[in-house]
Amino acid sequence: MSTMSEAWRQASAPTLGAEESVLLQRKVRRPWPKTRKNVTRCLGFIRRQLFRVGDDWYFLFILGVLMALISFALDFTVVKLLKAHRWLFEQLEDSNLLQYISWTVYPIAMTTFSTGFSQCVSPQSGGSGIPELKTILTGVLLEEYLTMRNFGAKVVGLTCSLAAGSTIFLGKVGPFVHISSMIATYLGRIRTTVTRDYENKNKQYEMLVAAAAVGVASCFGAPISGVLFSVEVMSSHFAVRNYWRGFFAATCGAFMFRLLAVFNSEQETIIALFKTKFKVDFPFDLPETFIFIVLGIICGLLSCVYLSCQRWVIGYIRRNAFILKLVAAEKAVYAGLVTLLLASITFPGSLGQFMACRLTMKELLSSLFDHRSWGVLSQNATFNIQARVDPDNLWIEWCHPSFSFFGTLLFFLLMKFWMLILATTVPMPAGYFMPVLIYGAVIGRLVGEVVALIFPNGIKSEGILNPIIPGGYALAGAAAFSGAVTHTLSTALLVFELTGQMAHFLPVLLAVLVANAIAQKFQPSFYDGTIIVKKLPYLPKIRSVDIGSYKVTVEEFMNTNITCLDKSFSYSDILRLVSSRPDTVYPIVENSESMVLVGSVQRNEVIKFLQAHREEKCHKDKSQLEMGVNLWERCHIDPVTVQLSPSTSLHQAHKLFDLLVLQHMFVSSAGKVVGFVTRNELKKVIEDLTNGRSPAKM
Amino acid sequence: MSTMSEAWRQASAPTLGAEESVLLQRKVRRPWPKTRKNVTRCLGFIRRQLFRVGDDWYFLFILGVLMALISFALDFTVVKLLKAHRWLFEQLEDSNLLQYISWTVYPIAMTTFSTGFSQCVSPQSGGSGIPELKTILTGVLLEEYLTMRNFGAKVVGLTCSLAAGSTIFLGKVGPFVHISSMIATYLGRIRTTVTRDYENKNKQYEMLVAAAAVGVASCFGAPISGVLFSVEVMSSHFAVRNYWRGFFAATCGAFMFRLLAVFNSEQETIIALFKTKFKVDFPFDLPETFIFIVLGIICGLLSCVYLSCQRWVIGYIRRNAFILKLVAAEKAVYAGLVTLLLASITFPGSLGQFMACRLTMKELLSSLFDHRSWGVLSQNATFNIQARVDPDNLWIEWCHPSFSFFGTLLFFLLMKFWMLILATTVPMPAGYFMPVLIYGAVIGRLVGEVVALIFPNGIKSEGILNPIIPGGYALAGAAAFSGAVTHTLSTALLVFELTGQMAHFLPVLLAVLVANAIAQKFQPSFYDGTIIVKKLPYLPKIRSVDIGSYKVTVEEFMNTNITCLDKSFSYSDILRLVSSRPDTVYPIVENSESMVLVGSVQRNEVIKFLQAHREEKCHKDKSQLEMGVNLWERCHIDPVTVQLSPSTSLHQAHKLFDLLVLQHMFVSSAGKVVGFVTRNELKKVIEDLTNGRSPAKM
Repeated sequence: MSTMSEAWRQASAPTLGAEESVLLQRKVRRPWPKTRKNVTRCLGFIRRQLFRVGDDWYFLFILGVLMALISFALDFTVVKLLKAHRWLFEQLEDSNLLQYISWTVYPIAMTTFSTGFSQCVSPQSGGSGIPELKTILTGVLLEEYLTMRNFGAKVVGLTCSLAAGSTIFLGKVGPFVHISSMIATYLGRIRTTVTRDYENKNKQYEMLVAAAAVGVASCFGAPISGVLFSVEVMSSHFAVRNYWRGFFAATCGAFMFRLLAVFNSEQETIIALFKTKFKVDFPFDLPETFIFIVLGIICGLLSCVYLSCQRWVIGYIRRNAFILKLVAAEKAVYAGLVTLLLASITFPGSLGQFMACRLTMKELLSSLFDHRSWGVLSQNATFNIQARVDPDNLWIEWCHPSFSFFGTLLFFLLMKFWMLILATTVPMPAGYFMPVLIYGAVIGRLVGEVVALIFPNGIKSEGILNPIIPGGYALAGAAAFSGAVTHTLSTALLVFELTGQMAHFLPVLLAVLVANAIAQKFQPSFYDGTIIVKKLPYLPKIRSVDIGSYKVTVEEFMNTNITCLDKSFSYSDILRLVSSRPDTVYPIVENSESMVLVGSVQRNEVIKFLQAHREEKCHKDKSQLEMGVNLWERCHIDPVTVQLSPSTSLHQAHKLFDLLVLQHMFVSSAGKVVGFVTRNELKKVIEDLTNGRSPAKM
Repeated sequence: MSTMSEAWRQASAPTLGAEESVLLQRKVRRPWPKTRKNVTRCLGFIRRQLFRVGDDWYFLFILGVLMALISFALDFTVVKLLKAHRWLFEQLEDSNLLQYISWTVYPIAMTTFSTGFSQCVSPQSGGSGIPELKTILTGVLLEEYLTMRNFGAKVVGLTCSLAAGSTIFLGKVGPFVHISSMIATYLGRIRTTVTRDYENKNKQYEMLVAAAAVGVASCFGAPISGVLFSVEVMSSHFAVRNYWRGFFAATCGAFMFRLLAVFNSEQETIIALFKTKFKVDFPFDLPETFIFIVLGIICGLLSCVYLSCQRWVIGYIRRNAFILKLVAAEKAVYAGLVTLLLASITFPGSLGQFMACRLTMKELLSSLFDHRSWGVLSQNATFNIQARVDPDNLWIEWCHPSFSFFGTLLFFLLMKFWMLILATTVPMPAGYFMPVLIYGAVIGRLVGEVVALIFPNGIKSEGILNPIIPGGYALAGAAAFSGAVTHTLSTALLVFELTGQMAHFLPVLLAVLVANAIAQKFQPSFYDGTIIVKKLPYLPKIRSVDIGSYKVTVEEFMNTNITCLDKSFSYSDILRLVSSRPDTVYPIVENSESMVLVGSVQRNEVIKFLQAHREEKCHKDKSQLEMGVNLWERCHIDPVTVQLSPSTSLHQAHKLFDLLVLQHMFVSSAGKVVGFVTRNELKKVIEDLTNGRSPAKM
């Protein structure tokens, strides 16, 4: 009978939920048991329904909204700071000297504080952060780059950098991508605590990719190009799954960001950030396509010059002992000195009057995207230097009584070229995308105005007059130059999302393609260049031009200097091997004769095991024969899922490293381990191929 | 001395090019040797320079231009055919009967011929072709789908299908993607012949992906969304390298396509295909965002209903013996009968007058994207049924004297719902994207007009009046419904590229996201649904909702019923094994005790070897002992680069299959083969998880 009742109890037990059995036990003490039961059930149902959607989407929503709030707050502060500076400057109209002091001291204070503070709090917060994030996404752990400490330093530093305005001429895209990924990491950690889920590397990766998209989207309110830009910059391949996540988060971010602008009464409704009014019926004449392509070529060539100068300057600073000391030891002083130089040049009383220096970054871009032709406008107006910036006629800033706007545009290009490179050497949190975008817009505007001057009535000057729209060229120039510098095509889409019009989409795309083809042929991208200069781990692309690369097999470049852990190794064998070779991963073989690969073990796992063993040995005096067995039981042995064969091609090996985010692979021939390949070997063989050397075994 | 001269000859030989040495030999007989030498050198230099760019880009350029030409020629023919039909119809104004006959016979002739011809030439040419292409891209060989024969059938059939106009209500996107990939395959074959390069599977894959993008781009002249749409529809992951290729080819295609329209004097310059004139200053009021989201929900729910009905109907046809016999045996008759029914309904004298049936597909879309509010327009106009379609006031077609346009829109939705499903059952080459896009636009227009009716002065009716723009809703509806049906987000971008304006980009994106979220939750996409119904190989996604899926390891679902080829197997052993098990791949192990995996061999390789051996045996009488060695020497043994471990998670295995386009993987534990996993096992375990069953070993 007792077994029967036991069986009955077991059978009936599972039908009572955990909550119900608790309720039954405490039935006497609590009122309204039925209502409470129903409420509990309802809550449980809602929770289950909510969790069925997947917590990812909540996570992405929160990420998007948070980033939009940060972006908006930052913009709000920066605008206030810039307004204060402009007000101060305009109040001191009477004295040139006081004006000069206010013009220079304000940005110097900002950049010095920005550099000093961010470097003090977290030395990793300098620069844009995209190169480091790109490295992290290839699987390298740079943990200090994603801490909350770094987040604080970056936000405060960036605010100050941006408040220095167009004097220092820097943007916010890069740092925003970085900030977004820091928030994503932090939110991810909170999530694993709440849901008590184990930390999932794949999920972290997915979220970082989405975060990069949110960063760009919440900067410009441009979700689609945000996703595409981050994909192109960050990774060499992407999953459509991540693309959807990115889209969702970026849309939340962009929507929130634009919504806040409406709530703050900056705009009446949600419209594009740099709304343009180009003619949609006849945006450009057909022969103009060639001029757009020429513009693309110009932008491509200029970007090559810019990128090589940029890298040369950074290299020079690293070689020059005096500057290096200054940059390394007295970062804030260096920042102050650079800003003093830049501010002195851009002072409206000096050279600044020839380069529209009173405009902020946003005003610069708005003025360049103007749909009216400056040539026509300046014919109908007479102008003197005005005391204040006229927000409805920003283009007047580009005109100087004794200097046509062609001169100012050209002068801007010449001066900002080296000024921008100089500004990028300052180790403070700042982005380099926006200045490049504006620089490109100036190139485009210059070309557009020249075309408008040559063909005042449009190219096909018959029937209805369709004059040239120089703003369209500014659009194409901005997209082409920024695309070429960053090696991305999505800048084409970005300018459309910024302006809300797509009338020029084919010529802009052509210009971007041409500029990219030239830039990708001759120079690594801005971010790759920084990775190379900073000596971060980096896997170069195999260019299809290197025809020989298709014939190279793993056998030719694998590292054959491999030592394996034998399953039957004793404690001292393991100790000798580990101390003689500092590899991060050791292969484990069946036995030293057959060399059949059965798994791999991380170095730190082995060291942990060795330490544990030594302690154990101090306590007890075990026989050393069991050690081999112990290694198997105590260490975490990774199964070998992916391995190479000596006949695998270089391209395939490269693809595997790239797709699966690997650091290390073993090479086995007919089951026997014969070598290994890491990213170093791959990098070396690709460099050898590019330089025309035959690949050498390591 | 002879060794020295030998060495000298060897050293100098490489400095003379192959052409030069030929020239030197024939020096006497040909005039102007120097000039010819120089010309040859120049040509060689140019050729080298051209090849340095990489032949890929020429290939992509040619692909883009060819597709644009085909698309344009096809459109040109279709427009002429449609005009002829309209002319005929209008000439017969006096007789209702003759009008009815001309209205029905013309499309019946077209669809019957389309079905008959394409099914005769190539039975694979029916339908859109995207599901098959998607299957090909997962690594399954469906060679007959990419032949030139199929190409001819598809082009001719598609032209006729489109010439049936809005009666049959089908589009061209899907077939164009298919046509483009056929051309890419053919061009690839030409290339391998010209450059004498070996055929590269990776390159073929890259080119197919680019071809899909070109297909969409040359249909709509929309390069960016073309690339994104093809990515989303075709693959689950994507290399940025392919994305650039796609972009380049798609831009060439789209540019050429738009250029041809200008050369043909259809347009004055390159503008968007369905240019709109929405107000950019105030495209929509903030509270309208909610209505856009509601529209997204409506579109998402309707798409679920549509998709399930679609699959039910196709399933019903397969079950119903009579219809199945008709569809299978008398395809042309079936097509004719369906067209007769559809044409009788859409005849303007009968029900067609209530659903704007006189408009072509393009005119339908143009009328729906109209920036003016039909409510306002119809107040100012009185209308009777007009004899001809007024190309400047297409909206009048939607108004009926005794029936408001709300009625016609609703009637259109009701009728076209089942008519579209019926049309998709006809096995002729036709696309299903355009009808879905128009259907969505009608949903959006209806919602927009209702909103405009409720808020005649705009929602925030203070200060400047900003009336509702119903065209914006049509845009959002089109993007949301087509996005939901195809499970893509890039339709949002597509509608902007079609209209040339991005003023509505945030609400449209929100609507698309909401609609997609609903559709992806409840239904497989249109293309996946077709793959399932057609029983093509298919790897389902793991939904993150299936929480249990994270804990499932390979051990739980791998197929342990594995037989290995031993290195020491004799001829008869191999023969017995191969005849007893029809696997496509056999693992090769070191020996049957250790079971250490050393490689794999394809079944057809083994069979080839066995046949060769039998023939050999007939000739000579060799000892059977060497057979094991022979297998190693004669068969192509594939090295095992990727293998699973029993502890690998389901997610990781899925990712490997997906990323590396694999069909088959071995599972090995500590070097020993213990099982294998194919797409079938993966599919089964995912289905088990979705249905709440615990995974079962096969």
